[in-house]
Amino acid sequence: MQTGTLAPELEVSRWFNAPAPLTLAALRGRVVLVEAFQMLCPGCVSHGLPQAQRVRQVFHREDVAVIGLHTVFEHHAAMTPVALEAFLHEYRIDFPVGVDTPSAESPIPRTMAAYGMRGTPTLLLVDRAGRLRQHHFGQVEDLVLGAQIAMLAAEPAPIEAMTGAACNVDGGCD
Amino acid sequence: MQTGTLAPELEVSRWFNAPAPLTLAALRGRVVLVEAFQMLCPGCVSHGLPQAQRVRQVFHREDVAVIGLHTVFEHHAAMTPVALEAFLHEYRIDFPVGVDTPSAESPIPRTMAAYGMRGTPTLLLVDRAGRLRQHHFGQVEDLVLGAQIAMLAAEPAPIEAMTGAACNVDGGCD
Amino acid sequence: MQTGTLAPELEVSRWFNAPAPLTLAALRGRVVLVEAFQMLCPGCVSHGLPQAQRVRQVFHREDVAVIGLHTVFEHHAAMTPVALEAFLHEYRIDFPVGVDTPSAESPIPRTMAAYGMRGTPTLLLVDRAGRLRQHHFGQVEDLVLGAQIAMLAAEPAPIEAMTGAACNVDGGCD
Amino acid sequence: MQTGTLAPELEVSRWFNAPAPLTLAALRGRVVLVEAFQMLCPGCVSHGLPQAQRVRQVFHREDVAVIGLHTVFEHHAAMTPVALEAFLHEYRIDFPVGVDTPSAESPIPRTMAAYGMRGTPTLLLVDRAGRLRQHHFGQVEDLVLGAQIAMLAAEPAPIEAMTGAACNVDGGCD
Repeated sequence: MQTGTLAPELEVSRWFNAPAPLTLAALRGRVVLVEAFQMLCPGCVSHGLPQAQRVRQVFHREDVAVIGLHTVFEHHAAMTPVALEAFLHEYRIDFPVGVDTPSAESPIPRTMAAYGMRGTPTLLLVDRAGRLRQHHFGQVEDLVLGAQIAMLAAEPAPIEAMTGAACNVDGGCD
Repeated sequence: MQTGTLAPELEVSRWFNAPAPLTLAALRGRVVLVEAFQMLCPGCVSHGLPQAQRVRQVFHREDVAVIGLHTVFEHHAAMTPVALEAFLHEYRIDFPVGVDTPSAESPIPRTMAAYGMRGTPTLLLVDRAGRLRQHHFGQVEDLVLGAQIAMLAAEPAPIEAMTGAACNVDGGCD
Repeated sequence: MQTGTLAPELEVSRWFNAPAPLTLAALRGRVVLVEAFQMLCPGCVSHGLPQAQRVRQVFHREDVAVIGLHTVFEHHAAMTPVALEAFLHEYRIDFPVGVDTPSAESPIPRTMAAYGMRGTPTLLLVDRAGRLRQHHFGQVEDLVLGAQIAMLAAEPAPIEAMTGAACNVDGGCD
Repeated sequence: MQTGTLAPELEVSRWFNAPAPLTLAALRGRVVLVEAFQMLCPGCVSHGLPQAQRVRQVFHREDVAVIGLHTVFEHHAAMTPVALEAFLHEYRIDFPVGVDTPSAESPIPRTMAAYGMRGTPTLLLVDRAGRLRQHHFGQVEDLVLGAQIAMLAAEPAPIEAMTGAACNVDGGCD
């Protein structure tokens, strides 16, 4: 999907390291970094996940939320939720991680398909207004990522996010 | 168990990357490096397994055999044989890897218990005569490991190994 | 000296990799990264200078100028201009590097003293209006540095810099 | 020069980190690692010299002597003895380092020419009997180097070295 348009909502079947389910809608007002990974993807383990952890330590949490998304598109029998839980424990990953909801028709899980991700690691940046602004497949340098996050964090939050009263006509409130 | 004495035989429930089951007895005459690991152990992934792969490339295979041993003592539901198979594929590990046989009474698998291993990664060196000569828990430097392997490889093979006719009184031959 | 105030002009006795002498005044309108280093400082060689080179590759040169400053405060007989020239050649450093003018009274060269630098590596960021905005001694993470540079680059240039006609009442023009 | 033959004596104009001049002859009985480097050679700084320091820490000094040799063949005005002294101090190199004697006729210093070295870093291994056994130009892996040193250290020392009374028929003693 195109950057600049509203980021599709995450479709998550289970959350780890989160007291309650997370949605992009509820995170409106903050920049959101979504690190899409597979626990058996070497580039995710050596590069993507450590980078996401560094982002979490460097930026204030009221400005930038870091979320992992386990987008399993191969070796489904190996990368189960129970395996993921052990992985998160052993690798000391303490930010919220959602399991991308498997699809009935395809090996590609739902959120991965909605964003048209090409593989893992994929890093998404969603702005304070909920729009997808960056979509990186593979490695992105820390210098570049730091600059992109800072630019998004410097943008004003949308009014409804600042007031904390974003409600829809059908009655749902964030 | 003590170094210098005969290395207990590996108890393996399943092999990967091996056309047939391997035994230390059948490898008599060669130095054997056993890399005991768990697929979700960060130190194994970042240090132990890459080091075992370097050993395999540097030393001649007729001198030194490199074997992995999946010694799962925690997160058993996560580190199943099917998960291990995906892991070996994704991390491009092509030397033989055996699954240490689970124990009915303990979370510690059988070979791990027989050697008294303290955790993972553990690196064992078995000499040409089948005796355990080094038992490293944690990281060992390449300079030290290279020296230890070379010293063992320089020792003469036992006569039966050289002739390839190591038979026991009860009729079994290697 | 304090961040937020006008950055003191560089006092340079000799330039390398520059067709003509550079001044902060002439760079007004751009963000300027000054990497203060000594060629025999291990942290400069392993961290500071490679980081400055990465900044040069990531950011547009019309936005961000990268300058090295050889601030020799020890081993003066070893780190001469002729030694520096060989160093820049061997380490493939191709951004402009100025030699901080030695002081007659102190081992600390003049620009280093004017900025109150504590040692090397020191990284300075000067904004488009010529004000010192960041002063890092030691290592700074790429994520942090990328964010700081991006924020400064996003600030509007001062009017005189944009018009390219910054002249003073006493007749001097940048 | 060929490996297996007697290693030419070092021609050194000045020593650092050594109470008295060193000679290969006086080191007979020990394995000698000679790390030939230039202080402004990036591969020497990042790989060769740290490796030599690791060797010094891993092997016993009565078995293996580690010596640096500053073989300046370019940028002679930059890599002077006074510059080398500052370099050794800043990089915390504490093993003995000799300055290869400059040649009157060539930019290649004398020991470098005698051994036919192709550049820096070059690592030489001399056995207990004083014969050149390995000559590596560029990088050599720790696993390989550890094995080569161990094999040489395992060879018996020549009788004269063991007795410490190596004298020649013409009256010279080591």
